[in-house]
Amino acid sequence: MAKKVITFGEVMMRLSPPGYETFSQANSFELVYGGGEANVAISLAYLGMTAAHVTRFPDNGLGKAATQFLRKHWLATDHIIYGGSMIGKYFLEKGAVHRPSQVIYERAGSAFSEIETGMIDWEAILSGADCFHWTGITPAISAGAARCCLEAMQMANEMGIWVSGDINSRENMWNYGKTVQEAMPELVSHCDLVITSSYGIHEMFGLGDKDMPFKDSAALLMDRFPRIKKVIGKTRTTLSASHHQIKGHLWDGETCQGSETLNITHIVDRVGTGDAFAAGVIYGLLHYEDDTEALDFAVAACALKHTIPGDVNLVSLQQVLSLKDGNTSGAIRR
Amino acid sequence: MAKKVITFGEVMMRLSPPGYETFSQANSFELVYGGGEANVAISLAYLGMTAAHVTRFPDNGLGKAATQFLRKHWLATDHIIYGGSMIGKYFLEKGAVHRPSQVIYERAGSAFSEIETGMIDWEAILSGADCFHWTGITPAISAGAARCCLEAMQMANEMGIWVSGDINSRENMWNYGKTVQEAMPELVSHCDLVITSSYGIHEMFGLGDKDMPFKDSAALLMDRFPRIKKVIGKTRTTLSASHHQIKGHLWDGETCQGSETLNITHIVDRVGTGDAFAAGVIYGLLHYEDDTEALDFAVAACALKHTIPGDVNLVSLQQVLSLKDGNTSGAIRR
Amino acid sequence: MAKKVITFGEVMMRLSPPGYETFSQANSFELVYGGGEANVAISLAYLGMTAAHVTRFPDNGLGKAATQFLRKHWLATDHIIYGGSMIGKYFLEKGAVHRPSQVIYERAGSAFSEIETGMIDWEAILSGADCFHWTGITPAISAGAARCCLEAMQMANEMGIWVSGDINSRENMWNYGKTVQEAMPELVSHCDLVITSSYGIHEMFGLGDKDMPFKDSAALLMDRFPRIKKVIGKTRTTLSASHHQIKGHLWDGETCQGSETLNITHIVDRVGTGDAFAAGVIYGLLHYEDDTEALDFAVAACALKHTIPGDVNLVSLQQVLSLKDGNTSGAIRR
Amino acid sequence: MAKKVITFGEVMMRLSPPGYETFSQANSFELVYGGGEANVAISLAYLGMTAAHVTRFPDNGLGKAATQFLRKHWLATDHIIYGGSMIGKYFLEKGAVHRPSQVIYERAGSAFSEIETGMIDWEAILSGADCFHWTGITPAISAGAARCCLEAMQMANEMGIWVSGDINSRENMWNYGKTVQEAMPELVSHCDLVITSSYGIHEMFGLGDKDMPFKDSAALLMDRFPRIKKVIGKTRTTLSASHHQIKGHLWDGETCQGSETLNITHIVDRVGTGDAFAAGVIYGLLHYEDDTEALDFAVAACALKHTIPGDVNLVSLQQVLSLKDGNTSGAIRR
Amino acid sequence: MAKKVITFGEVMMRLSPPGYETFSQANSFELVYGGGEANVAISLAYLGMTAAHVTRFPDNGLGKAATQFLRKHWLATDHIIYGGSMIGKYFLEKGAVHRPSQVIYERAGSAFSEIETGMIDWEAILSGADCFHWTGITPAISAGAARCCLEAMQMANEMGIWVSGDINSRENMWNYGKTVQEAMPELVSHCDLVITSSYGIHEMFGLGDKDMPFKDSAALLMDRFPRIKKVIGKTRTTLSASHHQIKGHLWDGETCQGSETLNITHIVDRVGTGDAFAAGVIYGLLHYEDDTEALDFAVAACALKHTIPGDVNLVSLQQVLSLKDGNTSGAIRR
Amino acid sequence: MAKKVITFGEVMMRLSPPGYETFSQANSFELVYGGGEANVAISLAYLGMTAAHVTRFPDNGLGKAATQFLRKHWLATDHIIYGGSMIGKYFLEKGAVHRPSQVIYERAGSAFSEIETGMIDWEAILSGADCFHWTGITPAISAGAARCCLEAMQMANEMGIWVSGDINSRENMWNYGKTVQEAMPELVSHCDLVITSSYGIHEMFGLGDKDMPFKDSAALLMDRFPRIKKVIGKTRTTLSASHHQIKGHLWDGETCQGSETLNITHIVDRVGTGDAFAAGVIYGLLHYEDDTEALDFAVAACALKHTIPGDVNLVSLQQVLSLKDGNTSGAIRR
Repeated sequence: MAKKVITFGEVMMRLSPPGYETFSQANSFELVYGGGEANVAISLAYLGMTAAHVTRFPDNGLGKAATQFLRKHWLATDHIIYGGSMIGKYFLEKGAVHRPSQVIYERAGSAFSEIETGMIDWEAILSGADCFHWTGITPAISAGAARCCLEAMQMANEMGIWVSGDINSRENMWNYGKTVQEAMPELVSHCDLVITSSYGIHEMFGLGDKDMPFKDSAALLMDRFPRIKKVIGKTRTTLSASHHQIKGHLWDGETCQGSETLNITHIVDRVGTGDAFAAGVIYGLLHYEDDTEALDFAVAACALKHTIPGDVNLVSLQQVLSLKDGNTSGAIRR
Repeated sequence: MAKKVITFGEVMMRLSPPGYETFSQANSFELVYGGGEANVAISLAYLGMTAAHVTRFPDNGLGKAATQFLRKHWLATDHIIYGGSMIGKYFLEKGAVHRPSQVIYERAGSAFSEIETGMIDWEAILSGADCFHWTGITPAISAGAARCCLEAMQMANEMGIWVSGDINSRENMWNYGKTVQEAMPELVSHCDLVITSSYGIHEMFGLGDKDMPFKDSAALLMDRFPRIKKVIGKTRTTLSASHHQIKGHLWDGETCQGSETLNITHIVDRVGTGDAFAAGVIYGLLHYEDDTEALDFAVAACALKHTIPGDVNLVSLQQVLSLKDGNTSGAIRR
Repeated sequence: MAKKVITFGEVMMRLSPPGYETFSQANSFELVYGGGEANVAISLAYLGMTAAHVTRFPDNGLGKAATQFLRKHWLATDHIIYGGSMIGKYFLEKGAVHRPSQVIYERAGSAFSEIETGMIDWEAILSGADCFHWTGITPAISAGAARCCLEAMQMANEMGIWVSGDINSRENMWNYGKTVQEAMPELVSHCDLVITSSYGIHEMFGLGDKDMPFKDSAALLMDRFPRIKKVIGKTRTTLSASHHQIKGHLWDGETCQGSETLNITHIVDRVGTGDAFAAGVIYGLLHYEDDTEALDFAVAACALKHTIPGDVNLVSLQQVLSLKDGNTSGAIRR
Repeated sequence: MAKKVITFGEVMMRLSPPGYETFSQANSFELVYGGGEANVAISLAYLGMTAAHVTRFPDNGLGKAATQFLRKHWLATDHIIYGGSMIGKYFLEKGAVHRPSQVIYERAGSAFSEIETGMIDWEAILSGADCFHWTGITPAISAGAARCCLEAMQMANEMGIWVSGDINSRENMWNYGKTVQEAMPELVSHCDLVITSSYGIHEMFGLGDKDMPFKDSAALLMDRFPRIKKVIGKTRTTLSASHHQIKGHLWDGETCQGSETLNITHIVDRVGTGDAFAAGVIYGLLHYEDDTEALDFAVAACALKHTIPGDVNLVSLQQVLSLKDGNTSGAIRR
Repeated sequence: MAKKVITFGEVMMRLSPPGYETFSQANSFELVYGGGEANVAISLAYLGMTAAHVTRFPDNGLGKAATQFLRKHWLATDHIIYGGSMIGKYFLEKGAVHRPSQVIYERAGSAFSEIETGMIDWEAILSGADCFHWTGITPAISAGAARCCLEAMQMANEMGIWVSGDINSRENMWNYGKTVQEAMPELVSHCDLVITSSYGIHEMFGLGDKDMPFKDSAALLMDRFPRIKKVIGKTRTTLSASHHQIKGHLWDGETCQGSETLNITHIVDRVGTGDAFAAGVIYGLLHYEDDTEALDFAVAACALKHTIPGDVNLVSLQQVLSLKDGNTSGAIRR
Repeated sequence: MAKKVITFGEVMMRLSPPGYETFSQANSFELVYGGGEANVAISLAYLGMTAAHVTRFPDNGLGKAATQFLRKHWLATDHIIYGGSMIGKYFLEKGAVHRPSQVIYERAGSAFSEIETGMIDWEAILSGADCFHWTGITPAISAGAARCCLEAMQMANEMGIWVSGDINSRENMWNYGKTVQEAMPELVSHCDLVITSSYGIHEMFGLGDKDMPFKDSAALLMDRFPRIKKVIGKTRTTLSASHHQIKGHLWDGETCQGSETLNITHIVDRVGTGDAFAAGVIYGLLHYEDDTEALDFAVAACALKHTIPGDVNLVSLQQVLSLKDGNTSGAIRR
């Protein structure tokens, strides 16, 4: 029977000019939806897991359309709640070569930012789940969102459900009075699995330094938060907006595994590739005994996302397995 | 030399599913910009007048793109100010036949809603103008917007510039603590020209009743606000979302003129037709001695807008004159 | 708690040239999915009911995409089965004025046409349902499909679930060795509710004649099949491809109700309007005590479908109620 | 064996903003090709005749693409000649309701305008043909085009091939030093069949007056040019850009037939409807003994063109016959 | 005078999601047509040869549109026959980088698969031809298609027309009861020219082994089938879905020529590149005395196809010659 | 206060098939506008300068739309003049890899080509300007355009405004009776800054030879035209249509500076990159004391243009500065 994941976080309307047009050229926007946690859930659903996402949308035609996007991409949406007046948004101007992609967020006052503890029946939602996943973006959105996230993790801990957190330190997101340094320790203390970087570990927890080898930072993090069983990281070399290289790392408290480096040139859409990696990590750790295999799976999933338009990794299990097995040629399947 | 108009108000990003798609079907949004006052300015610019619009946009790529839209459509944009973080928006699901178009507004917290007196140098802006135009939407947005609007009108009165107001009573817009009934009298007392309806006159000022003949309501309004020289109204018969009929009325304090009724079937885009009428009224009164001619001009302009996609009436003076002269056939021009 | 409907039938890929292009002009096809029974289920889901559709798709990316379309539009898809090699299709060239829309079907050898009894667990599926709905198209597709349909109805009868059939006599569809006249009587004998026409009653069952008043044909049908409690019909006057008029009729064994006639000019998409009517009938009879109200509801739902691109009626309960209450003006909702 | 028609004239690139956008809104142009004579040839090819068009295009990728458009639509293109540097163009802003469609021509200096007698081997081209068709636009383009047209007609007369001319008096097209009044008489003297109007007969030949009943003008024309056997006209009532009515007339020297009036509301594309009529006239007179039948055929063909995007009437013989037989309902063909 | 080629095989409707969208994302399909043999014919027509394609389409609007596609791209289509009910199709999800393109075929029951000997008048068709070309796909489709192909080759042999076969061993295509190993020898025995690979020679004829140098496999093939004068192959190195390298080989019975290797990165559309190579081989061998030149021509043609959307190589002779002459820079032509 | 530039030259309608389609595949054209000089002005406006362009358009909807494009992109358009009948055009078929982009010009008889001295009030236009910029294309268009260009430069010299010329020797453009060699010396003698190449210096002025090191050619040019203070050049290595490398050179009469080489792979649109370089040169020399910084700025601006669809470099000052400072990674900006 399929493993089950529950994710929690904001889902934004993503509006982007067609192709490589700039904001000043756009006469229409391509419309998809995305958010770090829902991206993970959809990715896992495409890989064959059961997945549900919990969020809050305005109770209007736009909130319903966002829900329909998640349903279309195989998520259970029964626990989405409705209220408030605005859906979070981001505008994406897609770059190429030396020109960076530009993102403009409009999340202030969104339906999700007004979420509060007690609105969501976590016990019902988490029943039967194998994993609860959150990211560091959620507690940055509002005090309520942070509290809800904590509420969910506490319940997951209580129910013996594995908690996965993908955390980093986008300091400029924390605008409601609490800093990332104040909020993160309590949240991370509930995690069984953490995806992060040396830079993040230093910034968020004051541990080690930014350029320290991953295994050393990871070891410091695990010492500080003993619930954590694995710390996973990813090195991304950004040669240009069109050409990246990625490699994964995993610290299990004793040894540090490293994946192969994948070379990704002719990138189609770079957004959501970190979420695809996180989904790969979760899928891998839930399905492989061997952590190296899990890590190779995660890197393959991440690499494939660079070829999919939109926020979400829509590839199948078989596509990830093929790349994980070293088939990098992309030869036509007939 | 061309007459000059200054308008003031919010300009929103308009996002609409292609064709007759519903929100649930949309995979892209068509992008234009619109707002009741800027629509009037652009319409007048296409008719040959000089026109400038004053508004506030966020200082990012989206705010600049909105400005560029106004520039493209011939407006002077030098007096637009930048700040805040969000551009006002509305989402439009276009209806047909018995299915109404649906509009979802997202204006709360917009850059414009945070505007305050003192931010704009009205004396410089109004210099050389023949007309300042505002609508009843602006004071509904925020206390600051209402104060700015008043500030502009006071300056216009002082400088001897004609003030035109297109006012109605969308009560559900007034959410900042003041009612339309509290705010409107002071604002209207600065107007030389008012576009409204018996319904509005009753709702906003408690004068007459909703179904009273236009001339009687208009007379009551003019008695109450002696600065007003003309009150103009429009009767719209909505046979279906695709088929309307319109007729104009004008009360000059002594007599009430009525235009021909224009029958508009096979409507392309109904939004902004009221603004096209207001622009026609302003153009007409500035350029015709005879009020009936002005009114016929306004009705022709209004009718043509129903055939133009987007918020704004992009027709030329010659196109309006041709319809005003009774050429309703729409025969090809080669 | 929401009422629940189960539908069963083929879902086709619908491929249509953009706008009013002919097949010879098309360089792309707009892609949606549709089928008489799924259209009913989706329509009812938009009206607020719980709805599941049962069908069979090929086990490939196209079959999954079809399922995703149904999920997006709120259907439960857990009971869809996969196998075979081709998805049924139809190509639609949209007509206007005097030019008829043209449909080319490609259903031979479809995954659905190969369905057989025993493939579907009707008892599980029908559990908790209020209504099972089928159309006369399904038994025309293949002997297996006809048998499956019968199997479902027998189970529904046994479980005390209301059976609704929308039947007509497209004789040219019956190509597998059985005629509509041979197959239909047994199928119809399991129905509680039948949607049909005098023409169909005559052609399929040899009862009455084609031009007989609806109530007389309906009475003959009910005499022949005593399980039937209501017979519903619809008169469509086709003034042109762009202009229709519709009116509903309902025979309850004693009296014949008639709805108002709705005039629909400026049609956007005529396909699926019969299914929208059927959904309206089902919704109406499940929610109104008064059959006339149910019929008015059905006609309003049907009329609104003419304004929605695609096969399916995506309007909300509130939109149907507004038209049912006589609001035909289609005035903008802000 | 299929009857064969040869047509001669300029084919232009037609560039039009999508939907009802104005020139000022366009960010792309829809691209088709059209010209009064080629439109007739393609229309006749769709009706089942053999058709070849003779023209001149620049010898570059654009000229080849234009040829490919004609080939796609079933024309023989072997006699097209290449040279010069520019393809003729027209820009079309599609109107609706009271807003006229606007056409901007760019034909000066086109490859076709530089055509000269001797460039085309008319004897080879006309071999086996049943009809040669020209329009009054061709001699207006340039002296060379007028001479080529005459050359073709002389050869056709010699070879006993029926000559059809669709002539009118767009005076503003005649810019190369000759007037329509000077040029037309000689050209028309070679025609067996003329499509024109009372207005045109008066303007071009000084016969009768503009508002004279068609049969009287036609009789005067036939008296003046005794080669003519039939004069055909069409009355178009232009209620709006979206709603026309058409009726055909035919004078055979003795009696004047009139067709039914067809009411065309919800027009999709009005351009090329006159050419569709001309094609219908040619097809009708070549295939029906009875002139009334021919005329009804022509009016049906003309009406159907109003529903086809682009310049050309892409309907089949069966579609025209169905409308000719009175089936105006546009009901779906499955 | 231009050389003439006749090709025979199925032409499929190709339906592909826009850009890099997956099947699950598609809301429309881009529509072109393609088939291994017609692709060769069109490619040769663009290079300046006379080309006709023989196939069978359903006698409906889709079959006609497919024919029109071939006509547009310069093919003679007079010998296409019509019947059956379905057009063969393939759905293409375009990959990038490590993500393979996915193809789903729907050919079962197609109009072409029902073709039979005697339906086609090969003697008339082949009259005046210089080359008849087939591929190994055709005999895999159905027994009838295989017999027709043989019939054509026998006639071509008889008429002294050069026969070219592009053969490989897609074993999963052979579903009608015969294996590729059973069918191919007789067919290949009629060929003068064969395009294949060591892998194919081993799989289809049991000659040599899969990794043998091309010249050795080719020599074995030529020994077995003495009619063959040249065996041509192509090495494709698939670095990713976006980056390939190609190199050609030619065995003439005595020596083996090799072309330069062309490096193709930033691939636009990989489909049909083998057919572009085959067309290049045919053009080259018909127009160059020197086989190396022919091979260089073929590789250049093949490389250019990777830059053209769709199945078919639409480049001109001059474009191929420029690349064949070593101009790989792709600098703008003004 | 922002520096101000005035540019003069033809602006063409650019019509290009979508994506990588060939002319033969196009069913629509993407529409933008461009011209070497206006491209420079717009680029400088995006960088923050004040910019006005002077040109001549036909006085119709197309000429107005072209003006609106310039207005949208921040140019002052008050000095554009209207007349004539045709707008200059170019058609662009975008290439990739080894396939060159193809350009077809249609400029003969354009409104701009008919421009004459005296039509433009240069004194008013140049008032307050810091720089007047022209290119070698303008004098090639017509004698009148050459004279106007000279007229402008003479006035600029008189007013002490810096003159910049981007000149090369497209000999095939000079068709009105004068050669580039006859016309260029007088024009160049008025320049303070010249952008050109060794090849151009040799071809146009007979100085040096084509492959001479840039500094030597530049020195010869400066000797011949003593007004010139700087000569700037650019080396472009064209590895394929998708991959270029660029490097800048600057001769100031004493030393020759060279920029870093930028590697640009995955090119989006190559057109207008030379103009982006010229704009970068002008901005750089007006804002940096150090010529090397100016040159690095120009190369960065040029490189970024390769990622922007259309003719014009729409990047911001901050984007150029970031690349100039060595940030080539194109990492997302959030």
